[in-house]
Amino acid sequence: MVKASICTIGDEILIGQIVDTNSSNISRRLGEIGIKVTRMVSIADDTDDIITSLSRELDENDIVVSTGGLGPTKDDITKQALAKLFGAKGWKTDPVQLQIVHDFLKSRGLDILDINLKQAEVPECCEVIHNHLGTAPIMIFERPDGHRLYSLPGVPHEALGALDEVLADIKKHFKSEDIYHKTIMVYGFAESALSRLIEPWEDALPDDVHLAYLPNTATGIRLRLSVYGCKSEEAESKVEKLLVGLRAILGDNIYSEQDEPLESVIGKLLRGTGKTLSAAESCTGGMISHLLTTIPGSSEYYLGSVTSYAISVKENVLGVPSETIKTHGVVSSEVAAAMAEGVRKVTGSTYSVATTGLAGPGGDEHNPEGTVWVGVSGPHGTITKRFQYHNDRKRNIERFAASALDLLRRYILSD
Amino acid sequence: MVKASICTIGDEILIGQIVDTNSSNISRRLGEIGIKVTRMVSIADDTDDIITSLSRELDENDIVVSTGGLGPTKDDITKQALAKLFGAKGWKTDPVQLQIVHDFLKSRGLDILDINLKQAEVPECCEVIHNHLGTAPIMIFERPDGHRLYSLPGVPHEALGALDEVLADIKKHFKSEDIYHKTIMVYGFAESALSRLIEPWEDALPDDVHLAYLPNTATGIRLRLSVYGCKSEEAESKVEKLLVGLRAILGDNIYSEQDEPLESVIGKLLRGTGKTLSAAESCTGGMISHLLTTIPGSSEYYLGSVTSYAISVKENVLGVPSETIKTHGVVSSEVAAAMAEGVRKVTGSTYSVATTGLAGPGGDEHNPEGTVWVGVSGPHGTITKRFQYHNDRKRNIERFAASALDLLRRYILSD
Repeated sequence: MVKASICTIGDEILIGQIVDTNSSNISRRLGEIGIKVTRMVSIADDTDDIITSLSRELDENDIVVSTGGLGPTKDDITKQALAKLFGAKGWKTDPVQLQIVHDFLKSRGLDILDINLKQAEVPECCEVIHNHLGTAPIMIFERPDGHRLYSLPGVPHEALGALDEVLADIKKHFKSEDIYHKTIMVYGFAESALSRLIEPWEDALPDDVHLAYLPNTATGIRLRLSVYGCKSEEAESKVEKLLVGLRAILGDNIYSEQDEPLESVIGKLLRGTGKTLSAAESCTGGMISHLLTTIPGSSEYYLGSVTSYAISVKENVLGVPSETIKTHGVVSSEVAAAMAEGVRKVTGSTYSVATTGLAGPGGDEHNPEGTVWVGVSGPHGTITKRFQYHNDRKRNIERFAASALDLLRRYILSD
Repeated sequence: MVKASICTIGDEILIGQIVDTNSSNISRRLGEIGIKVTRMVSIADDTDDIITSLSRELDENDIVVSTGGLGPTKDDITKQALAKLFGAKGWKTDPVQLQIVHDFLKSRGLDILDINLKQAEVPECCEVIHNHLGTAPIMIFERPDGHRLYSLPGVPHEALGALDEVLADIKKHFKSEDIYHKTIMVYGFAESALSRLIEPWEDALPDDVHLAYLPNTATGIRLRLSVYGCKSEEAESKVEKLLVGLRAILGDNIYSEQDEPLESVIGKLLRGTGKTLSAAESCTGGMISHLLTTIPGSSEYYLGSVTSYAISVKENVLGVPSETIKTHGVVSSEVAAAMAEGVRKVTGSTYSVATTGLAGPGGDEHNPEGTVWVGVSGPHGTITKRFQYHNDRKRNIERFAASALDLLRRYILSD
């Protein structure tokens, strides 16, 4: 099995200022092409540390993917350390990356400084993959034993943006095992409950099919089926047969058979139908609207939203009767329904979704922290549902938004 | 200098299923007591890997803090690996932890199984810190050379919950060196431009002061000054003197001298003043409102927002004159101003911020992709500003939101 180590270079990770998300993303992608990640290491911006650690990882692995330390400023020293580690005899300027640096700065109206142009300079002994999203090119070094090091920028979208080409190079140089993955998106279960529900199906899976549960606050649970050691078409038809049983158990709790979030599925349900959507948010504070509008083309069906953090906005903009608030409290089925109906009226949308709850810290006299009422309104009436979570503010908001989107999805489906 | 390594044990991290946040949190806390974290390592649930990696980290560091692999199920093998690594001659049951396990399961209505009771069993050669938030105790092992290993559970709130006691033990056994960090938040510059602007100041920094640039789409650039080897008060006064020069160069481009985002600074500017805020969002689609409401207590000053994705919502809810849209186009200074004024009127807020632009993919006949007009309105009139970015949709939205929050901050400051 081809083994890889992922190394993150930068003091900001080591002192705990930044959480490293690159390693996790890169590891997942390496796993998809059958490369086993044996270790992840974070190293300081220190030449000796970089050289010692990267050499060791290269001794023990076929592939090392490093991120970070490639910025134009003085604290970034990865490139110099790599030149030393691989015994570079000099430097070369990559003309394509130089042009990218020029265009990149020009299009942003920035002065072109010497330190920027230096970004296109690399040790003579490396191969280059161009970075179209930033100034630092991806460098590839090979040792005499055939072990390869890929040096990527630390900025996450630049690192991930270069990953397709990096993986293509890895596939060219290393013989990785055949792996086929299929992702099923499920909403509405705790991991342990889902696991118990599908246990008989899971226990009957053939030995070469592996099931992983990937729970996530915002997307519910991804079920990933991986088939090892057979060609893509064969694996696909094998998985298709297995899925018949899973669909029978889970029904519309499966919201997609691709790796995509709820807001994307809602977009697919609405696009081209002429039907429209709006949102009224209290405790989710704009997150639902933000999620819906991350989808390109969402302006075709999404009209807009009202975030009614203050009671006055609930009453004056959404037309929630002050009597309803007084009688039932702000966090109630009645207010969620009135908000959903109000925003549907104000925007003239076909459907609407609304939230009112307590993300924390703290609850009120009637509801504990983590309570949310979701309302969904449409041509066939208004429904509401209460959810209770036990996370911190940030994660409660994420769960509230996801629960609201899922209730909306089920309403549209049944419509 | 006392050196530490943080080791994360668990396949779920290595295959990219989970992002490790423990290491970052533990590192920050170690840094605060002057322990230098030299490396972070993630290791698989494999006895040989665990023993090899932990020994190596113990050779090269005074302290190793490990998390993970302490659960009751078969895949968790850290405790067995540690017993082997430290040559334990047998096992002992910790009576206090045993009681905690009993109480923990009982309070959740769970059956008490043998595998649960085993959680209170530890190698005879270790010291124990009790885990009151879960079943696995924290184990401390010491080598003959005085290097100590702290084994913590992987569940984040359990690991962090035990950290105070772990740090107290570290302070008792090691004389730590002083490290002092100061973070300065800057908005409005590209990294290279900022670097050039402050180069003379940076070049004049004393040798024991290290400067790092940490750029981020949502927060601008963090400048981190680290002072090594002097007492906290001395370092603080040294940094304070250096900052005089930096402040003179950067003025109100510095938005905070703590590690915090723009929405937190805006909260501090408004809290306790009785002044309120609202937002009108087109291209940012709810992100500004979402960011503002991530701050606990934001309901004190934040009234709400209107996301006007459709022109009809801009006209009917925000009262933007249809003539303004026809004459100047949706993405224009005039519409940004009218949106800001409209939402201020609708919500009755003191201040408001508005965005209209094109996050992409694609521009329109008048504006390229990545254009945004921001409007800010308040008691002393309305201002607008145009920004142009060159990222993908997701990052353009983040930058639009950050630019809007920064313009709002500057308006409130000058008010």
